[in-house]
Amino acid sequence: MNEFELIERLFRPLATDREAALDLGDDVALLRPEPGRELVLSKDALVAGVHFFEEDPPQQVAAKLLRVNLSDLAAKGADPLAYLLVLARPSTLADDWLAAFARGLEEDQERFGLGLIGGDTVATPGPLTLSLTILGSVPEGGAILRRGARPGDRLWVSGTLGDAAIGLRIRRGLAVPEDQALPFLARYLLPEPRIELGRRLRGIAHAAIDISDGLVADLGHLCRQSAVGAQVHAHRIPISQRAKTIPGSLRSALTGGDDYELLFAAPEVETERIRRLSEELSLPLACIGETVEGEGVRVLDEKGRELAIEEPGWRHF
Amino acid sequence: MNEFELIERLFRPLATDREAALDLGDDVALLRPEPGRELVLSKDALVAGVHFFEEDPPQQVAAKLLRVNLSDLAAKGADPLAYLLVLARPSTLADDWLAAFARGLEEDQERFGLGLIGGDTVATPGPLTLSLTILGSVPEGGAILRRGARPGDRLWVSGTLGDAAIGLRIRRGLAVPEDQALPFLARYLLPEPRIELGRRLRGIAHAAIDISDGLVADLGHLCRQSAVGAQVHAHRIPISQRAKTIPGSLRSALTGGDDYELLFAAPEVETERIRRLSEELSLPLACIGETVEGEGVRVLDEKGRELAIEEPGWRHF
Repeated sequence: MNEFELIERLFRPLATDREAALDLGDDVALLRPEPGRELVLSKDALVAGVHFFEEDPPQQVAAKLLRVNLSDLAAKGADPLAYLLVLARPSTLADDWLAAFARGLEEDQERFGLGLIGGDTVATPGPLTLSLTILGSVPEGGAILRRGARPGDRLWVSGTLGDAAIGLRIRRGLAVPEDQALPFLARYLLPEPRIELGRRLRGIAHAAIDISDGLVADLGHLCRQSAVGAQVHAHRIPISQRAKTIPGSLRSALTGGDDYELLFAAPEVETERIRRLSEELSLPLACIGETVEGEGVRVLDEKGRELAIEEPGWRHF
Repeated sequence: MNEFELIERLFRPLATDREAALDLGDDVALLRPEPGRELVLSKDALVAGVHFFEEDPPQQVAAKLLRVNLSDLAAKGADPLAYLLVLARPSTLADDWLAAFARGLEEDQERFGLGLIGGDTVATPGPLTLSLTILGSVPEGGAILRRGARPGDRLWVSGTLGDAAIGLRIRRGLAVPEDQALPFLARYLLPEPRIELGRRLRGIAHAAIDISDGLVADLGHLCRQSAVGAQVHAHRIPISQRAKTIPGSLRSALTGGDDYELLFAAPEVETERIRRLSEELSLPLACIGETVEGEGVRVLDEKGRELAIEEPGWRHF
């Protein structure tokens, strides 16, 4: 498929907001934000062989691309609006791959309520490279930022941590019986952006971040931006029953990436509302520690002794 | 430089709108469009070895990346606002290259009045890949689209056509004395986005497009979107004196890409205003033809005979 066929056959059906997308017939998209709302924008890229495996199912690659960006919106409490896509494709990439990729986008954009409004496709002699710009919106001043935490806030995380990192370890050769491997692989391949949680945390959380680089690293980002320190109680970190059977699960939960759960800081007075929210959303929310005056992240064991964290962050580099 | 150093040292100085960029300390940017305006968005990518040469000066690569995107805004009559940048970089890319690239962005963003508000850097085993999302704004309903031309409109182009394509031919080996080569190379390497012209064409032009794929191809896009046909009078196409000395200059002007001049359709009644605008901006604007009922682009010689255009478009593929 050449660029025009690609747009015509695969991408135009994804441009559900035809007015904003100008039917993908122009070089640009037009967006008229609702009065009283501001836009939240994020841009991320995935490279074959770096951020996903070339043999990963294309629908899952599409879903992952959209979801890692949706997760950025979730952490800000934003409602998804639209996205732009750039696809740098090697000449060896099959049309079937692209068609399945487009189906993956279609399913997820329906599910999360946003549509394609523009982008570009280019040729590359290198690996398939996908870049997505996502747009969401919040009521003016309503975005939850990294920088809002205050000393004495409680730190919360959603879901369970470490499963995705175990999934990645399995992809890299960790021996686990196949039926046990699947849930970990699914967590690695298909993150669940916590859009509804983020939205409901507006006005409750002082600061939030999605956990993509690992709990300790991302909490470090939040602390630096908020000019606070933090302590985390290792035994309170939510680890799934199945992860507990895998050696190194605490380490995966502390420093493994790709969970895309939300980590947020909220004043103690909101504790009850957060517990109710957890029930309403049927989503576990665990209080794992608190922010303190100062800087840096300390992880404490049950007896209050500091654990040494060997690998402070998980990076793509 | 790792990602954090890269952001700290090179990119943070580019985030001049610190509020929108959140000092590049968050995962997102926040944008509050002025009341009564709508956003114009475009996203393009450049791949080393495909859209630029690896030995091109990094400052020029930066300027080209920004300018091809600014040109998309210019064609819509939009005022530049901000941009997001994704950089997929091979491990072999030198820090010096990146520093010079950032300087190139800095110069041009000052010149064109916009700032970096976010983005991402990732590693790639392939060639350097640059993806930029640009944001501009227009008064609500004021964007000049591809789709607005009506039969009987006059077709205009700014500047001269074909110089950039001759520059590319020189890069690819066309023998031209060095002192004559430079202006062509400059046109290829450093397009001049026609921001002020685009802005002034709001309310005058029915439709517009920037010429990146070649006059005939881009006029074809405009015609398809507007459901009109067009005829172009070859002898009225503005070709620079220096280009006229190069064999194949008409062909370069008709089908060569990378000029980034504006092509627009306007009703005949606006002819005088357009001529005055040309004087005010000290920018040649040539009337090269007209739109007609029907479809397709015909190129006519001085005697009204149709010229055969061998290569209807210039594509990166």
